[in-house]
Amino acid sequence: MEAFSDGILAIVITIMVLKLNMPKDTSIEALREVFPIFLAYVLSYVYVGIYWVNHHHLITAVNKVSGRLLWKNLFWIFWMSLIPMATEWMGLHPFQKLPSLLYGSILFMCSISYIMLQSEVIKINGEDSKISESIGKDRKGKASILMYALSVGFALIFPSISYIMYILVAVMWVVPDTRLEEIIKD
Amino acid sequence: MEAFSDGILAIVITIMVLKLNMPKDTSIEALREVFPIFLAYVLSYVYVGIYWVNHHHLITAVNKVSGRLLWKNLFWIFWMSLIPMATEWMGLHPFQKLPSLLYGSILFMCSISYIMLQSEVIKINGEDSKISESIGKDRKGKASILMYALSVGFALIFPSISYIMYILVAVMWVVPDTRLEEIIKD
Amino acid sequence: MEAFSDGILAIVITIMVLKLNMPKDTSIEALREVFPIFLAYVLSYVYVGIYWVNHHHLITAVNKVSGRLLWKNLFWIFWMSLIPMATEWMGLHPFQKLPSLLYGSILFMCSISYIMLQSEVIKINGEDSKISESIGKDRKGKASILMYALSVGFALIFPSISYIMYILVAVMWVVPDTRLEEIIKD
Amino acid sequence: MEAFSDGILAIVITIMVLKLNMPKDTSIEALREVFPIFLAYVLSYVYVGIYWVNHHHLITAVNKVSGRLLWKNLFWIFWMSLIPMATEWMGLHPFQKLPSLLYGSILFMCSISYIMLQSEVIKINGEDSKISESIGKDRKGKASILMYALSVGFALIFPSISYIMYILVAVMWVVPDTRLEEIIKD
Repeated sequence: MEAFSDGILAIVITIMVLKLNMPKDTSIEALREVFPIFLAYVLSYVYVGIYWVNHHHLITAVNKVSGRLLWKNLFWIFWMSLIPMATEWMGLHPFQKLPSLLYGSILFMCSISYIMLQSEVIKINGEDSKISESIGKDRKGKASILMYALSVGFALIFPSISYIMYILVAVMWVVPDTRLEEIIKD
Repeated sequence: MEAFSDGILAIVITIMVLKLNMPKDTSIEALREVFPIFLAYVLSYVYVGIYWVNHHHLITAVNKVSGRLLWKNLFWIFWMSLIPMATEWMGLHPFQKLPSLLYGSILFMCSISYIMLQSEVIKINGEDSKISESIGKDRKGKASILMYALSVGFALIFPSISYIMYILVAVMWVVPDTRLEEIIKD
Repeated sequence: MEAFSDGILAIVITIMVLKLNMPKDTSIEALREVFPIFLAYVLSYVYVGIYWVNHHHLITAVNKVSGRLLWKNLFWIFWMSLIPMATEWMGLHPFQKLPSLLYGSILFMCSISYIMLQSEVIKINGEDSKISESIGKDRKGKASILMYALSVGFALIFPSISYIMYILVAVMWVVPDTRLEEIIKD
Repeated sequence: MEAFSDGILAIVITIMVLKLNMPKDTSIEALREVFPIFLAYVLSYVYVGIYWVNHHHLITAVNKVSGRLLWKNLFWIFWMSLIPMATEWMGLHPFQKLPSLLYGSILFMCSISYIMLQSEVIKINGEDSKISESIGKDRKGKASILMYALSVGFALIFPSISYIMYILVAVMWVVPDTRLEEIIKD
């Protein structure tokens, strides 16, 4: 199940890298032209990285693989699999309303489906298992969902505010996730 | 062998995601234009998911890896590997006869080759093993084959009936596969 | 090391499938046009399958992973990784001299590097290990190399003879590799 | 964690192979035209191979997976993931300043981030662990960083000198890395 989890996110990164095309010629301008696409790649890479680290911790803790868990995992992967396309679209059209909106909506669905997956794991392992305690109220997860919802709203009015929110959520997560580190220490 | 099985289906999903191109501009129309391709992706994703969950259960149950098993697995993967191309063709040309026909034929071959793989596992593990009992008469598998055969026939006359049948088969499978869950419970 | 081996060949298959483009429209002619590319894919798929099954047996038998083994494996993968490009070129230009020549040369290098990898495994496990006995004189391996060399020669004069030889080698290998099955039985 | 590491570099190789397009027709000239791209592929393949072998040794030695280790690994993968794009750009525009500069800068960042990953492993396993001793002062690693820095400098004046330096670093590493082989022998 761990190899499975790693494979999934590797797919998403692979595709994003593939969509990262080289500059069309060897001038500074051509390099500058691909820069927004590169930035969009960095942002999505960080998001996938966050999920990778968290999913790795989550799956390692699973006691028993059930059919429901596999389907919830597949549901989450489905939304993750749409990230590369949304990243490319947003990267090619920076500060445009629809691409910002789509990007935010997909991140929103990723976190909703991740929370569903997380509660399935809690259900399997029991409310008083280590993983349940460490996830706890999952304030970060809920705050992220709220911020994605807000940024989807802003996308149609001020796409740049959405961008700032996408970056804020990423920063909030990269800061070491102490809750999960604790389990490992035990 | 489990990592092997997961890798295979990860490939198919990767390729489908890759073929999922972004809208050509940032208008609502461009987004609407890619919608049939997106729907075709969702359908194929569900199919691959179904096979993933079932194949995962099947392979976990295998006692011994034989050369014949590897080749039957490769034969099944071959047909699975054609899904992305057929999905893309059908998605780009909705309600066209030939793409519907090809899509159905490939699904038909996928399920035929999966049944061959399944009976190889039964042969290896023995008729009275848990996995054999749980697969049983595999009514769902046989019904799917019949429905694919019918939908291939309809494709040349009413492609939309084929579409409905493809969706019906998917729905029939996503409903939790209780037979297999039982083995895990034991 | 087994996951490693499976990952490698999964890559090659992934890329070949990706290069398998859909027909340009929904006519029978467009479908017929992609047919030689499809046949080239089938042939290469069978080759990769042969290596997959054999490499799986070989790697499972390895006692100890050394740096030399990893590099010989990487050398073999290098040649395997060129198969998709050669397949696509040959598929798009059937019965052309240079594509046939390149395809044969790459298959030739694949089998040379595979034999190098095989002898490294024999060296690690010892001459009197089960795997060494089962590989034995490896007549099939040597015959394949000879046939590839011949088909490279024929490619510049009669590409169709090269094609027949490529198919013959594949058939020769798909016939169950009894030598290797024996080890598993033990 | 080992499957994880292998998956990562498999991704990079996959993408490079994908970017390796076939000649545009069946003439010798078309084959010659793709030759610089092929050479760039060979060079990058060797680099990825070097990291593969070293990372394999490094990760096998890790006692405990921490969140910091996963993030340092992700940081290193990030730079590795840019290799395919830089390779393609350099291959298509041989002896051009900017592509040489970008290629060197990415290799530079790969080795900086690899050294960061390496010191994290040393920190986890302890200064007196086998892996720390075997890495030792890591003269090769530091020399590579210096050579990349120099070649980035040369790229804007004499790209060909940069090329020679890229090849030299690769040669320096492929020569069996005896330090690491020693651990395995123990």
